Amino acid sequence: MTNWTLVYNDFVPSQEGLREVLCALGNGYFCSRGAAPEAKADNVHYPGTYVAGGYNRLITKLGDHEVANEDLVNLPNWLCLTFRPEGGDWFNPQAGGLLAYHQELDLKRGVLTRRVRFRDKADRETTLTSRHLVHMGNHHLAALEMSLTAENWSGPVLVQSALDGNVINAGVERYRELSSSHLEPMETGEVGADWIYLRVQTNLSHIQVAQAARTQIFRNGEPLIVARNKIEEEGYVADELSFDLVRGETVRIEKIVSLYTSRDHGISECGLAAREAILRVECFDAIFNTHVQAWARLWRRCDIVLEPAGREQLILRLHIFHLLQTTSPNILDLDVGVPARGLHGEAYRGHIFWDELFILPFLTLRLPDVTRTLLLYRFRRLNEARWNAVQAGCRGAMFPWQSGSDGQEESQLVHLNPRSGHWIEDNSSLQKHVNAAIVYNVWQYVQVTMDMDFLSLYGAEMILEIARFWASAASYNPKLERYEILRVMGPDEYHDRYPDAEEAGLNNNAYTNLMAVWVLCRALDVLDILDEERRQSLCERLDLGAEEIDHWEDVSRKMRLVIDDDGIISQFEGYEDLDEFDWEGYRQKYGDIHRLDRILEAEGDTPNCYKVSKQADVLMLMYLFSSEELSSLFERLGYSFEHETISKNVDYYMKRTTQGSTLSRIVHSWVLARSDRARSWKLFCEALESDIADIQGGTTSEGIHLGAMAGTVDIIQRAYTGLEMRETTLHFNPCLPDELKSVRQKIGYRGHWLDIEVTQDHLTISAAKSWASPVEIGVRDEVHILAQSESITVQLR
Amino acid sequence: MTNWTLVYNDFVPSQEGLREVLCALGNGYFCSRGAAPEAKADNVHYPGTYVAGGYNRLITKLGDHEVANEDLVNLPNWLCLTFRPEGGDWFNPQAGGLLAYHQELDLKRGVLTRRVRFRDKADRETTLTSRHLVHMGNHHLAALEMSLTAENWSGPVLVQSALDGNVINAGVERYRELSSSHLEPMETGEVGADWIYLRVQTNLSHIQVAQAARTQIFRNGEPLIVARNKIEEEGYVADELSFDLVRGETVRIEKIVSLYTSRDHGISECGLAAREAILRVECFDAIFNTHVQAWARLWRRCDIVLEPAGREQLILRLHIFHLLQTTSPNILDLDVGVPARGLHGEAYRGHIFWDELFILPFLTLRLPDVTRTLLLYRFRRLNEARWNAVQAGCRGAMFPWQSGSDGQEESQLVHLNPRSGHWIEDNSSLQKHVNAAIVYNVWQYVQVTMDMDFLSLYGAEMILEIARFWASAASYNPKLERYEILRVMGPDEYHDRYPDAEEAGLNNNAYTNLMAVWVLCRALDVLDILDEERRQSLCERLDLGAEEIDHWEDVSRKMRLVIDDDGIISQFEGYEDLDEFDWEGYRQKYGDIHRLDRILEAEGDTPNCYKVSKQADVLMLMYLFSSEELSSLFERLGYSFEHETISKNVDYYMKRTTQGSTLSRIVHSWVLARSDRARSWKLFCEALESDIADIQGGTTSEGIHLGAMAGTVDIIQRAYTGLEMRETTLHFNPCLPDELKSVRQKIGYRGHWLDIEVTQDHLTISAAKSWASPVEIGVRDEVHILAQSESITVQLR
Repeated sequence: MTNWTLVYNDFVPSQEGLREVLCALGNGYFCSRGAAPEAKADNVHYPGTYVAGGYNRLITKLGDHEVANEDLVNLPNWLCLTFRPEGGDWFNPQAGGLLAYHQELDLKRGVLTRRVRFRDKADRETTLTSRHLVHMGNHHLAALEMSLTAENWSGPVLVQSALDGNVINAGVERYRELSSSHLEPMETGEVGADWIYLRVQTNLSHIQVAQAARTQIFRNGEPLIVARNKIEEEGYVADELSFDLVRGETVRIEKIVSLYTSRDHGISECGLAAREAILRVECFDAIFNTHVQAWARLWRRCDIVLEPAGREQLILRLHIFHLLQTTSPNILDLDVGVPARGLHGEAYRGHIFWDELFILPFLTLRLPDVTRTLLLYRFRRLNEARWNAVQAGCRGAMFPWQSGSDGQEESQLVHLNPRSGHWIEDNSSLQKHVNAAIVYNVWQYVQVTMDMDFLSLYGAEMILEIARFWASAASYNPKLERYEILRVMGPDEYHDRYPDAEEAGLNNNAYTNLMAVWVLCRALDVLDILDEERRQSLCERLDLGAEEIDHWEDVSRKMRLVIDDDGIISQFEGYEDLDEFDWEGYRQKYGDIHRLDRILEAEGDTPNCYKVSKQADVLMLMYLFSSEELSSLFERLGYSFEHETISKNVDYYMKRTTQGSTLSRIVHSWVLARSDRARSWKLFCEALESDIADIQGGTTSEGIHLGAMAGTVDIIQRAYTGLEMRETTLHFNPCLPDELKSVRQKIGYRGHWLDIEVTQDHLTISAAKSWASPVEIGVRDEVHILAQSESITVQLR
Repeated sequence: MTNWTLVYNDFVPSQEGLREVLCALGNGYFCSRGAAPEAKADNVHYPGTYVAGGYNRLITKLGDHEVANEDLVNLPNWLCLTFRPEGGDWFNPQAGGLLAYHQELDLKRGVLTRRVRFRDKADRETTLTSRHLVHMGNHHLAALEMSLTAENWSGPVLVQSALDGNVINAGVERYRELSSSHLEPMETGEVGADWIYLRVQTNLSHIQVAQAARTQIFRNGEPLIVARNKIEEEGYVADELSFDLVRGETVRIEKIVSLYTSRDHGISECGLAAREAILRVECFDAIFNTHVQAWARLWRRCDIVLEPAGREQLILRLHIFHLLQTTSPNILDLDVGVPARGLHGEAYRGHIFWDELFILPFLTLRLPDVTRTLLLYRFRRLNEARWNAVQAGCRGAMFPWQSGSDGQEESQLVHLNPRSGHWIEDNSSLQKHVNAAIVYNVWQYVQVTMDMDFLSLYGAEMILEIARFWASAASYNPKLERYEILRVMGPDEYHDRYPDAEEAGLNNNAYTNLMAVWVLCRALDVLDILDEERRQSLCERLDLGAEEIDHWEDVSRKMRLVIDDDGIISQFEGYEDLDEFDWEGYRQKYGDIHRLDRILEAEGDTPNCYKVSKQADVLMLMYLFSSEELSSLFERLGYSFEHETISKNVDYYMKRTTQGSTLSRIVHSWVLARSDRARSWKLFCEALESDIADIQGGTTSEGIHLGAMAGTVDIIQRAYTGLEMRETTLHFNPCLPDELKSVRQKIGYRGHWLDIEVTQDHLTISAAKSWASPVEIGVRDEVHILAQSESITVQLR
């Protein structure tokens, strides 16, 4: 296990998480094209419980999802490429005995290698080695190479290479009673004389997916002339190749697959495009080489190098790898969002939540155009968000908590508590704070890139419409002379109503209210920044006048926060009156209490009664804002903000949080980065293990947690370097944990590419050759001007 | 007829062109979504003669194309909304007699109004007034309002409002024997209880198109309760409404249509999207108002105001109107190019040629993001252009002369000479110069916007790959120590081979060769401009090394031009040896000789033998480049460039050109703008009449000539103002024709919006409030610095 390679061999139980995270390779791009567009309710079995998904599974047959989600040795049809000796059974390593198994994910090159040696019922021993990839440089291409060695036998062999449109979604156990079939067969056939072709369509959204496959067999580098036979069934087409294998001999099978969908640009029809592509395609080695080069270019920009380079380095790279599988430059011309579980599993059915808040900061500083694409995904759904606001009796745009292809609210109305077997009312759509996350991301993107074109055309409109929503959602309380936002939920999903309240929702959630203020401030900024022509056009189109802008100003100065005399910011109005929870008692009784909601519900109780949180809520504020920014927001509202406000609240809330979400450790590690470096590092290391060790015990197999993965990367990227945008200055205030000697990374900032090295002693920033104007770099309290091809080093102690 | 309104009434023969140009309203957006994606060969009747097109016609039933292409009074089914008195025939104004007809296109508001008064067989007199629009601010919406007055009768009336998927392409007479049906019915049905719905798909590209329609009838502003009946046939659905009409009474019928295609973003399925949209839609008046506002915003940015404001002003606005119908901001999220005939007619089947060269300069300075979108259309087809180059034995990317959805070469192999009835070999795909046009547009866009993001991600790759193509297409002639480009065609399509040559193509076309040099220079610039990270990535990906770059440098300094002792640049090598043409004789014999190719072919002769051109070829160089730029290109090549080179060549070639293309007058007017202002103005005025007077006698009904329309606008915009980008400076050198007192326009330049007023005496440039840094403005030989919110005035004499 180097810093670049994850290896899984034998069947060591402690490697459960590893087994899961390995399996993402090759799903990357193709799934991204399935996940978002098809993530739309198309079937209702239980009231409010939607089944979506779509052709992920079709695609994952190209990858090896199927394998990962089943027992590892259950490999009846490995990527739809299988074989049998004549008269024998199709490849089934369990039949006679599995002699060796080795699986290796090369993060640097994006290649998964497997080696299996097995014995069949007739005592034939065979070794199979496969390498496969989905091309990082050409997202229409996947390739699989399989080497087959007859160790102790000779004879005729039949290879079957298929395209299977009959795959279903079955990766999440608790969804299996729901509808799982999302594809309709459209067409199967041949391409030229030899290659095969399949076209299917998703059954609700009617997205067509076409694949063509070329299968060739080589002996000693020469193509083998083989007898070919086609098998066509509804939604299934296969190429059967027969040839003779001699004892000790190895043949190499290449399966190259082209894939297009009806949503692709620059084509006439996806079936035609897939067929033409397969006729033009190169051999496996050539495809392999350009794929590896594409990964090398990505890593040059996206790697973060730690010293010492131990397990943390490897897992950090695994997380970056998953980020790039889901959100590489391959999405630039697609209408896709970031699903909460990346492109790895089926949980949440590919739906989009607020995870961008944790994911985009990494992309914005390295692949800003990927961020732009993901923000455009939101912009394209702005009209639906407007409609959503109207339905809620508000103005502006209210993006839904959980959404799919058409941007409608898809949050479930009930969810299952597997512990009690009960279906519970689900009010998660009250998490209006997702709207603030969108504005935060737009703002960060514009700060980093100064992409005024994006701001003018798209960003400003989103910011203004979301600001308008918050202003309309805030009601004035004349007694307090404050605005209030009522009946919402914060990020902490353990609280969705007051104890014994009929109606769901909580009032004056601190995170929501303060984020709304911040959004209103940014909206006021935007109106200042835009050029006159665009501002006028936009205001006309949105019918936005001076009176409304004055109202925003007012709301942004009089929003209510509930703060007690000790300076503890109430998570929501009334939180202070809830009972303290018996942490010790429950820990003793249940051991793992990170899903306390399920435990309490099964007992007939509810976390609504207690000061107990699933995840960071108030502390999200300290995660997103520096102390200076928080202080100025409090000042704007006329609340006092003391030097100790942050540490007091961190202390108060960390004690009362179960870490029921993988995101929680990220936030806690972050907020402790300066005040308690040792504890911050410990939480960081725990967060690193979220998926690779499957610390929630089973959720990784349903899909990796992309927000948490990105969050760990962002802790290194921004929290430990103290990287922060303050108007025209890029600030650094490094504070490495003792465990790190140095961190090296490259970021893009306003047209510059900056190499940044942080050690315990110094900070060095080098700007590469560029067309951009010099930028201001702040280090602690000093501001430096850095021009292209220049470098600065600052001693830190 | 004001400066904003085109009126057509009665049947004045001289208004033939006007009749045609009127009919574009309402086709704009919808067609744009048909034209480019579906413009792909799907049927071959005659060898090499492709039939494409698609759902234009479906859409035009929403607009009024159908009407315009047929006899004006033949209105059996007006936008699929018709009526009959019970027992009478469906609306047919010819049956009893047309009493009055009035048709009016309001360019400012984008509304077409028609008034018809007619008598039926039973002597019932009825007046119909209609207004219709396709919404400029919401491209998913079209609306039609029809007022119906029973002048001298009373009785029950039946209204039929339909969605018709059985429309065909029949707008071009000579295509009518080819396949004309391009839609397959998919689904018809109801939305809710009352509204109707249709889904069809194009038969090759499988693009689905869904429409839903709401039809309501109002009397005195109140909705009328009517009996409704649905008619469903394959590919056709209609709503039949019956009610009573009283003599002298007017009822108002509103038909609102929503339209989505399977290529739209942010939806699940287009049918679902269309159905949901129609349920949320507002009333006609509200739709009308927001539509008019959207046009007002566009005009604020795109209008060019002339003084005096005569017929030229009106036609100029008509041309801008057509430009915006085809390329408004509604295309920003679509994968579309600019068809040569706009979105008005079916000629060339929506294919894309080089017309962008004439069209984009207007857009780049006003709606730069529209240009970006149109350039991305090319970028998305870069891989196909690479394949095209490989097929031709070249390297890099060779974009095709004529292309559709998937970017493959679609040029016909034969074409019909209607004069002789012969099918003639067509070598137009030898016009490789389209590749230079693409680079020219990319470069202009980057110069105007400084959009380095676009350059880095897309523009640079196109420029480098096209440069690579030109370098590989140039062969070294060691005897001359020059590079040559052999066997191509220039813009002048009258010459496609040497007299008596077996093989088609001409050698060393001056336009092609010099443009290749210019492209290579820009490629070398780009490598200098890009930041180090992007440059390295790009060069790695394209496998572009120092040796190849040196070769480009070499080719860019040693390209061959054939120039005679008098300084006449040969259109191609050997042009100088062709016979002079008997202009006088042929003019006497045939009168109109602008299509001399057809005349000569019918005589068994060919223009290949003569010094006669269809359109500007060498003079394109003077059109695209200033004298300074040309001089520096000649110098780079080691050819002498005298002060008189331009005037000599203009004089030489203008005499030998038939203006067989509408683009030719544009170029000639441009190159004379300084040396012969009177003649330039005359040519400009003739070019203005191209479509409105249908000066080619019948081609306007097949589609307006968008390149020529844009060209006239560009003459005002750039030629007469002397507007030119020179590295970091925006230059002006105004030279208005005597006929113009002043020109006012607004342009966008590097983040500024500049109001520009040019008169005979002075130039005033005012920069609006903006975020952008000051820019350099050159006026004649002086450079001024202009900051936001500032203004400069320069006296011109």
